[in-house]
Amino acid sequence: MITVDDATGILNRFSLDRRTYVELKDSFGRVLAEDIVSGIDVPSFDRSDMDGYAIRDRDLDGRRFKLVGEMHAGGDLEVAIGDGECSWVATGANIPDGANLVIPVENTEKIGDDVIVYESGKESHISERGCDMKRGEIVLRRGCIVNDRNIGILAALGIRDVPVYDAPNVAIISTGDELARINDVNSMTLSAIVAQSGGSPVFMGTVTDDISHVKQKIKEAAECDVIITSGGISSGKKDLMPIVVSELGEVLFHRVKMRPGMPMLAGVIDGKPILCMPGNVTSCLVCGHVFLPPMLRRMAHLPFAGNVRRARLSEAAVSEYGMRRYLPVKLVDGVAYPTFRGSGLITSIGYADGIVAIGEAETLREGEVDVWVL
Amino acid sequence: MITVDDATGILNRFSLDRRTYVELKDSFGRVLAEDIVSGIDVPSFDRSDMDGYAIRDRDLDGRRFKLVGEMHAGGDLEVAIGDGECSWVATGANIPDGANLVIPVENTEKIGDDVIVYESGKESHISERGCDMKRGEIVLRRGCIVNDRNIGILAALGIRDVPVYDAPNVAIISTGDELARINDVNSMTLSAIVAQSGGSPVFMGTVTDDISHVKQKIKEAAECDVIITSGGISSGKKDLMPIVVSELGEVLFHRVKMRPGMPMLAGVIDGKPILCMPGNVTSCLVCGHVFLPPMLRRMAHLPFAGNVRRARLSEAAVSEYGMRRYLPVKLVDGVAYPTFRGSGLITSIGYADGIVAIGEAETLREGEVDVWVL
Repeated sequence: MITVDDATGILNRFSLDRRTYVELKDSFGRVLAEDIVSGIDVPSFDRSDMDGYAIRDRDLDGRRFKLVGEMHAGGDLEVAIGDGECSWVATGANIPDGANLVIPVENTEKIGDDVIVYESGKESHISERGCDMKRGEIVLRRGCIVNDRNIGILAALGIRDVPVYDAPNVAIISTGDELARINDVNSMTLSAIVAQSGGSPVFMGTVTDDISHVKQKIKEAAECDVIITSGGISSGKKDLMPIVVSELGEVLFHRVKMRPGMPMLAGVIDGKPILCMPGNVTSCLVCGHVFLPPMLRRMAHLPFAGNVRRARLSEAAVSEYGMRRYLPVKLVDGVAYPTFRGSGLITSIGYADGIVAIGEAETLREGEVDVWVL
Repeated sequence: MITVDDATGILNRFSLDRRTYVELKDSFGRVLAEDIVSGIDVPSFDRSDMDGYAIRDRDLDGRRFKLVGEMHAGGDLEVAIGDGECSWVATGANIPDGANLVIPVENTEKIGDDVIVYESGKESHISERGCDMKRGEIVLRRGCIVNDRNIGILAALGIRDVPVYDAPNVAIISTGDELARINDVNSMTLSAIVAQSGGSPVFMGTVTDDISHVKQKIKEAAECDVIITSGGISSGKKDLMPIVVSELGEVLFHRVKMRPGMPMLAGVIDGKPILCMPGNVTSCLVCGHVFLPPMLRRMAHLPFAGNVRRARLSEAAVSEYGMRRYLPVKLVDGVAYPTFRGSGLITSIGYADGIVAIGEAETLREGEVDVWVL
């Protein structure tokens, strides 16, 4: 038996560095696999920030300008202005040749073909070519997560296919003859944890406690980057996973100093990690939360940080000596109420908002504790 | 011009109560549209929690039991035990008729056909039929968000199609002749905000500043539950949205006391909300964050709570009198650095982690402020 920390450390050896391209519209939430270098100047021309009149600032002593053209956003007219001339410019329009100042329309009056300027501020109201992003500039770094703001940077550059780290494909298999009689819970709970850890769950279905069937299923699953099974890791006659993993690969650890989840096994098959969770539904969920997010988020190049909140534990709780205990709790008005009633019952964790970890030789009295919010 | 709070209040009138069914595997993150009532007892039989021997507790005075059968998880053998008899039971197996106590295997020794019990604890190690969930019990309430734990409750009940609230379909249209020359940024940033607010973005593409084309596009978009446009709401000749919305429906408000984002317009067409964002990319993103999450999350039946963190503002900032200012900031080691350089530049918000709101007649000095984390 090894400690949770040692088990987690062993799983740290697994990484993934596969890259792919996704369409810009699908890149939200993904992790950039390359630095993004701007291929263009943004804006690609000197652009008016206001509706108004473009003039030459050296002409400002005069207050009356002759209107010689109109520039609209997206228009392809070319206007050049000279001494004492002005051109209408809409917001977003190209600045006419010769102009270097925009007078907002509200500070002007149009009289016939002339424009009178009443007030000119300090600002030019011009966004110069490249002032947003310059061609050749690194605008986003590898490892950056695409969000609702920086996706705008990618869009502004006209990037259609975004280089991202590939999400680890995670094969999920539930084992056990009992699945002929009861509903498979673990495939669903594990796939939800996989999805929120940046992985892509691949449902492989269920398999009975028949060693050749189990081996066949695992071999198929080894196409994926990670294999997760549940069931078959205790010491009963039908607990085949320790045999299967050692025959197809190597067992890295079996039995972890934790409750629930003690029978937990991990191994490696064809270089891929295989995590064998207990069949008991709450044990499986706890092991899923303890072992999957750190490993999968690292493989997905996503940051991992548990969300911890202080709360008052409603009753004293103790760990079994030498074992770390994971106590599911429901949070109500800052109080953490334990929900655990047995590792085989889904309602032991089905209504929980978080988990309180109790150290290997620790008693928590009522009072303030750290709750790991799920 | 109306205040941000009044504008938000007006958008509060829109709701959506359409329900649908999704497959269990697709229900993660969705909101239950009905109470879930258990149709079965879970477990559906008295179930052993341990590998061990099932006996009758009244026989415990004797320490030697005759082994008369084996029960495996998922097996369909029926075993009945009588006086002084025991049956092997695996974890998850049915308890034999007559038995009411399981002695864990580690507390026993098998000698020939007999089993010697060395120690019996206080626990029965039996999960009685229905102890997890009882048939007829309400196990999850309408409005509950499906997560990695309670999806296990749905799975345990064998629910395949889950009743959920439909996500609002949100049509996204970018308007403006300039989109022939520059890349469309607003469709991407708005769709990301829509997605993280529980809506389904529907890309409608771009449309030039031609009133018949704009109207046609809006009519197509009215198939969706919400319409969002960007561009065309200022006072220029080509700013058509105020006319289009008033001709196809009703303008609810136009111009909001906020910077950036002042030209913002909202209306109603065929009972559907239409939100017309400014075309400037940072103005559009700010309006998206201010107006979309509260409205869309309510329509999606998701809770809405802004994520606020305290940070030290790196420099003083002031709002224009009567206008609420939204200042994008980058958070570095607890310090909020303003990133705003102009509402038409995507880098004004592209690197921001949050927004500092500055009240309508407020100056923020350097020091602690609330940052609305995006």
